[in-house]
Amino acid sequence: MRAMLFSQLFSKTTKAFPKDEEAVNAKYLLRGGFIRKMSAGVFTFLPLGFRVLQKVVNIVREEMNAIGAEELLMNALVAKEYWEKSKRWDVDVIYKLKTQAGEEFGLGWTHEEVITAIAQHFIQSYKDLPKAVYQIQTKFRSEPRAKNGLLRGREFMMKDLYSFHADKAGLDAYYATVIKAYEKIMKRIGLQYVIAEAAGGAFTNEYTHEFQVLASSGEDTVYYCEKCHYAQNKEIANPAMVAPDGKCPKCSGKIMSGNAIEVANVFRLGTRYADAFGVKFLDKDGASKPVIMGSYGIGPSRIVATVVEVSHDDRGIIWPKSIAPFDVHLVLLGDGAKERAAAKKLYADLMKRGVEVLFDDRAVSAGEKFADADLIGAPLRVLVSAKTVAAKKVEVKERASGKVKLISATKLLVMFK
Amino acid sequence: MRAMLFSQLFSKTTKAFPKDEEAVNAKYLLRGGFIRKMSAGVFTFLPLGFRVLQKVVNIVREEMNAIGAEELLMNALVAKEYWEKSKRWDVDVIYKLKTQAGEEFGLGWTHEEVITAIAQHFIQSYKDLPKAVYQIQTKFRSEPRAKNGLLRGREFMMKDLYSFHADKAGLDAYYATVIKAYEKIMKRIGLQYVIAEAAGGAFTNEYTHEFQVLASSGEDTVYYCEKCHYAQNKEIANPAMVAPDGKCPKCSGKIMSGNAIEVANVFRLGTRYADAFGVKFLDKDGASKPVIMGSYGIGPSRIVATVVEVSHDDRGIIWPKSIAPFDVHLVLLGDGAKERAAAKKLYADLMKRGVEVLFDDRAVSAGEKFADADLIGAPLRVLVSAKTVAAKKVEVKERASGKVKLISATKLLVMFK
Repeated sequence: MRAMLFSQLFSKTTKAFPKDEEAVNAKYLLRGGFIRKMSAGVFTFLPLGFRVLQKVVNIVREEMNAIGAEELLMNALVAKEYWEKSKRWDVDVIYKLKTQAGEEFGLGWTHEEVITAIAQHFIQSYKDLPKAVYQIQTKFRSEPRAKNGLLRGREFMMKDLYSFHADKAGLDAYYATVIKAYEKIMKRIGLQYVIAEAAGGAFTNEYTHEFQVLASSGEDTVYYCEKCHYAQNKEIANPAMVAPDGKCPKCSGKIMSGNAIEVANVFRLGTRYADAFGVKFLDKDGASKPVIMGSYGIGPSRIVATVVEVSHDDRGIIWPKSIAPFDVHLVLLGDGAKERAAAKKLYADLMKRGVEVLFDDRAVSAGEKFADADLIGAPLRVLVSAKTVAAKKVEVKERASGKVKLISATKLLVMFK
Repeated sequence: MRAMLFSQLFSKTTKAFPKDEEAVNAKYLLRGGFIRKMSAGVFTFLPLGFRVLQKVVNIVREEMNAIGAEELLMNALVAKEYWEKSKRWDVDVIYKLKTQAGEEFGLGWTHEEVITAIAQHFIQSYKDLPKAVYQIQTKFRSEPRAKNGLLRGREFMMKDLYSFHADKAGLDAYYATVIKAYEKIMKRIGLQYVIAEAAGGAFTNEYTHEFQVLASSGEDTVYYCEKCHYAQNKEIANPAMVAPDGKCPKCSGKIMSGNAIEVANVFRLGTRYADAFGVKFLDKDGASKPVIMGSYGIGPSRIVATVVEVSHDDRGIIWPKSIAPFDVHLVLLGDGAKERAAAKKLYADLMKRGVEVLFDDRAVSAGEKFADADLIGAPLRVLVSAKTVAAKKVEVKERASGKVKLISATKLLVMFK
């Protein structure tokens, strides 16, 4: 549904901030009726929030398809035997359950095990390589202290991409391709980020890379060069960068630091999982070799939260156009027949153009309507009142800049050509 | 990705039927590389299967939006307290898990509890009614004997819709609206069905209705009138219908019976959940009344399986056009430059038209290519060979009818206007 009447929305806004949530993203998303908290770290995406989430998902999907990755959907119930092969059955974050017959499963919090077991079935020869597959799926993570709203939930949406290569050069090339795709995603969503080097875990000597969005609420700390944007996660940062007057080891530029939210990462797995699951291929030279893998994550629900963290004011959320729940928040003031007719006509005309409109048709005060428009945060608020009708105009207010102008309805429509 | 090269597909087909799966849907979907079995009753949708699943999902979504339902996404981790309120914590089919701190959750196998708890927050007045919301989500069910492929899995995709009404008349009207929407979905997917009356469960004296697709593998038995299509599930069937020469109680038509697969159901919940969660509204007359609810399910992954059960031959699946993984299975035979160029041009031209094509560019035998085309089951197989190029034609074969014709590439393209 591209357009909605405010009076028919399933959710309602709330004036007061929730008492049991400190995170900015949770406060505004809850107040605006984007999400509903069902347990600590467990949220429902209400229709408004689902619209935003789907827009993020669609952007991610388009960019994954553009780099030749095929979409699939893996199982969430992952049997114990898979985790045992990779020695990850005993990690803290896995939720475990038993069937009536006593079989044990762990809920998928990541899917290296599953995809590697599948790949074993389909990859035998160098001719079967390279391959890349991804999924967009709800993942589960037993967080001891679920907090920070959607930033650290017990269930959350993830896009995870896995690639399979015959050699290191192939992996490195695709790794660079994925970084470019992630940069496109960030740009489309309007997030400012740094790409920080981070520890590679037990399985690689090379750095991994994290897409970090600077935000005071971030759980990570990054050091980054003001000039060339070279960045490192605090955990591995070069002593020269961490020093009080840190210098960039690449360009000697000034080093800045700050809290940041990790919204995506890219990871060279090497042969860690191929070894565990015995995924080998016959190379051109007739030799049997383990497949080399990469894994690449990006969190759509975390991105929704991150955007709120970095793009709000004290009145509410300021959505970038690409993921806003609606393009236009249309406000009708007054109960005169003329302004009502004008607002309805504008609503119909906007819909005809494919513009996504939320039409506040309620019989509430102007103050309440304006407060809700600011809280919900569509890029444009369009006001129709007796005054604007008399002037043969509509009042258009940009949520981000606060700029107001009176223009004709025709001129407004042309903006959405 | 609308088009794909066969040589680049992540999955491969298998010649032999799987030994551990008896269900027709599992056999063909596994052989064709649509799904992969990861545990009993637990499957991954491989890219081919995901394409089909997404097409079903999109049809369902369009028809839900068309009846004014808003999409949301509820949590899968549902805390014990929700199930206790409705007295469903102790059902067999619920998978239970504990957090590190000992909190107990059940995995959502249905979401009446969650949506009712949410509705309580947003519905206070008759002005807030009616409302309808739906989600498309992976659900979990502890099946003691997971079998029948995708027909009875431990995790599966469900669309569940919930409606909220001020009175019984409102519920009845929406109930009829949903039935019409489900009929549209069945028609778009090309499934023959009967709408069978079934038991209403403990909470209603009225019948519920099931969309049943006649199939020898179905776990249900339905009796239905050949003439007026009135139908009842065996469990509640009128003795007059069940009799050896059963007569329709509505029109005296001849009664038939058969196994059937339930692909959808509609259910009047009445005030069962509103009572459990205390969801009341103030009516026009100032009285506080419980909200009346309906719930309506349709299973996209089960629909995929059902289509395979009723639409296959001994060579493979016969997909209806609306949910086929590809519109065209393009087969190139021979390694001459001319036929290769002709096939490549046709592939490009079809893509330009937005046609979804799987282009079998592999260097394998004609027999293997034809067998895979039949197995994967796209509606049209288009063959380009030295012979067709010499005749300035392409060979088009309909998967369903087996009809073959030689037509010009131009004529083929026009078919996808």
